[in-house]
Amino acid sequence: MSVHRPLQQLAKRATTSQCLNFQQKAHHKPRIWQPQDRQMATVIPPVTQDSTSSKGPTAMVFMNMGGPATTDEVGDFLSRLFADGDLIPLGALQNYLGPLISRRRTPKIKKQYADIGGGSPIRKWSEYQASEMCKILDKTNPETAPHKPYVAFRYANPLTEEMYTQLLEDGFGKGKGGRAVAFTQYPQYSCSTTGSSLNELWKWRQRMESPTRNPNLSAAEAEGSILWSVIDRWPTHPGLVDAFAENITKQLESYPEDVRDSVVLLFSAHSLPMSVVNRGDPYPAEVAATVWAVQQRLGFKNPYRLVWQSQVGPSAWLGAQTSDTVNNFVKAGQKDLVLIPIAFTSDHIETLYEIDQEVIHEANELGADGRVRRAESLNGSPTFINALANIAGTHLNNGEICSRQMGLRCPGCVNERCLAQKKFFMGQGQQANTATTL
Amino acid sequence: MSVHRPLQQLAKRATTSQCLNFQQKAHHKPRIWQPQDRQMATVIPPVTQDSTSSKGPTAMVFMNMGGPATTDEVGDFLSRLFADGDLIPLGALQNYLGPLISRRRTPKIKKQYADIGGGSPIRKWSEYQASEMCKILDKTNPETAPHKPYVAFRYANPLTEEMYTQLLEDGFGKGKGGRAVAFTQYPQYSCSTTGSSLNELWKWRQRMESPTRNPNLSAAEAEGSILWSVIDRWPTHPGLVDAFAENITKQLESYPEDVRDSVVLLFSAHSLPMSVVNRGDPYPAEVAATVWAVQQRLGFKNPYRLVWQSQVGPSAWLGAQTSDTVNNFVKAGQKDLVLIPIAFTSDHIETLYEIDQEVIHEANELGADGRVRRAESLNGSPTFINALANIAGTHLNNGEICSRQMGLRCPGCVNERCLAQKKFFMGQGQQANTATTL
Repeated sequence: MSVHRPLQQLAKRATTSQCLNFQQKAHHKPRIWQPQDRQMATVIPPVTQDSTSSKGPTAMVFMNMGGPATTDEVGDFLSRLFADGDLIPLGALQNYLGPLISRRRTPKIKKQYADIGGGSPIRKWSEYQASEMCKILDKTNPETAPHKPYVAFRYANPLTEEMYTQLLEDGFGKGKGGRAVAFTQYPQYSCSTTGSSLNELWKWRQRMESPTRNPNLSAAEAEGSILWSVIDRWPTHPGLVDAFAENITKQLESYPEDVRDSVVLLFSAHSLPMSVVNRGDPYPAEVAATVWAVQQRLGFKNPYRLVWQSQVGPSAWLGAQTSDTVNNFVKAGQKDLVLIPIAFTSDHIETLYEIDQEVIHEANELGADGRVRRAESLNGSPTFINALANIAGTHLNNGEICSRQMGLRCPGCVNERCLAQKKFFMGQGQQANTATTL
Repeated sequence: MSVHRPLQQLAKRATTSQCLNFQQKAHHKPRIWQPQDRQMATVIPPVTQDSTSSKGPTAMVFMNMGGPATTDEVGDFLSRLFADGDLIPLGALQNYLGPLISRRRTPKIKKQYADIGGGSPIRKWSEYQASEMCKILDKTNPETAPHKPYVAFRYANPLTEEMYTQLLEDGFGKGKGGRAVAFTQYPQYSCSTTGSSLNELWKWRQRMESPTRNPNLSAAEAEGSILWSVIDRWPTHPGLVDAFAENITKQLESYPEDVRDSVVLLFSAHSLPMSVVNRGDPYPAEVAATVWAVQQRLGFKNPYRLVWQSQVGPSAWLGAQTSDTVNNFVKAGQKDLVLIPIAFTSDHIETLYEIDQEVIHEANELGADGRVRRAESLNGSPTFINALANIAGTHLNNGEICSRQMGLRCPGCVNERCLAQKKFFMGQGQQANTATTL
């Protein structure tokens, strides 16, 4: 499933001139990453952070969208969200429409965050999950220990630049080398989510560590930049599947035994605009893979559907819509429904407000009598945190750069930043010839 | 994954009055099939076809869309196709627009069938697959032997009514009971495909074997109607996955070894109108499950995408489109592409004409140099035929009626025929209380 490269090879560095060469050639000779290309890279002695033979410390960076920790942060959060053309494609009008929409929506969304306790718990959960995972990794993967947890959010604090500054302050990069793993916390890959986070990470990496973008860097600093690898998707990892299955089973047990097998499971994922789906975004198929794996794990005991939530605005989005589905089923007499957030791993506004306070509230108004419920989000689930450690530990052991699939741009992609980002991560900036093509 | 019922229980019959009762109650008390409901059915001594204790013969009915065997049949084929609101939803104008569109398209489609040799090979393959499978079943499942192969196409000969007439002539039903398995040849369930075939099967079963629809039936004939069970989906059966993987591997071997892992796999399935997707049709998610399983089987060695073909007309369909994807990739320099028909099991116009003569031809015109190729359809693959036998054998052994998932109508479904059909198959027409709800 992954692009493999032995760890010692992963640490080989190219010269600055090669970096420049790579920058220049990037758009001219696009091609798929090929194993034999590795041989073409100049071999430079490995640079390690502390100049010893240790392969650690290793920075484990959890990437996610984030959410405002307080209602005062809602304005900034929305303004970043609607400025992101990877997430909400507004075309040429992005810089005009983005601020307009975010300003208009701020009061409404502020109220929603107030209603769920004044802010999103996603930072709390992300920091907890990352640090608990690192504790496990220190035991299971001593050769890359110590593992240091970081969080980089796309639209809320800690932002990517804050995380990167912290990494440098902590002694990674800028001449000291060191290894960091960008670990997406979206189990299924979308250009709107993981893709956007990687584009942002690449942007800040270039600004802070590329000699072509940061003229203040010395030659030694440019040589010893951070070595990045990416965990870009893990939709059917058995531990993830187990964690979902556990929370579903727990919620099913809240129903009387005689109706338990008749409860309909509604796996709900954040929807995508059809423009993104039709461009070839891999997310809908990977979410479906997760759902199938979880259903397989549960023995297909309950009927189910994959449904899509959080559609915004007038353009076409992928359906069926979660809210319509719940309403239609309840109206048709099928009141026993369990909603399962299947594409996020922590609670956030889409679970705590949209599902709990909107969808379920509306269902009850239609007569659901409290029989529409939600499976708990993975949050602090030990099964889930063990799964994260297993995914990361395997990645570290195998010397993976990223999945094979990450190198393939969407067939309809016209975003040059995606191309440059993929070239960087797949080639790790040093090896012009290992870059991806498309 | 399935609704189970022991074989002997499956053979229990209810009285005609219960059937009537079922008909009347169908719309009033919809509810999910529940295991305990089985107990509520009146126990009637089992009726077997030959009044002996044998559980065979068993009719194995392959359901598929079919295709015109000669160009002369194209007109009738298209006229049935565009008359089917389950497949092509034209709303209130179906009876007007359907014939109009089919007449307009006939000359063009006739030419396409002429170009692939004068007709569709789907009947040849279906009859071959069904009879080969039955030979295997006679050995692996002697208790239900002999297994007799039948084919029922939705839009071409042999039509469902022809197959049903043959079943009755062969001694099934009309007082003689006997068991038949409706085995969809669409691995992934869509209301447009398997759903439509089941609606048609239910319609003809009612016309031929229901005392409320066929006044010529004697009481004994009504009692001894055919007992149906359904194999309604099998998207990730390991044998199916193996068969796909074999054909993909074989095609990959046609590429030079040094580029083989860089070939992009394009899994191509027939698209659906977005109106059907947004109604909650399970097909896109099940196709994605097949693709994931095949990629897992192949070790994710190649980058890939799931793409959608055969969009017709001006309304919105699910993408990314197969043809656009191929063109975009070829234009971007990615010429090594293998197309894999992932939702049909035999060759038909969508593989032999649309992919081979349109998509690949266009790719070559854009400079693909013959490097865009297609994996062979499953057709006569022994691995595939063994898989069919394994799926059917397991179904017969387990006493399955259908999958648990089949009972759940799409959240946006307003087709009353779907409701009646599901009630019939899940309850097998005899047990009012075992009917599905939604």
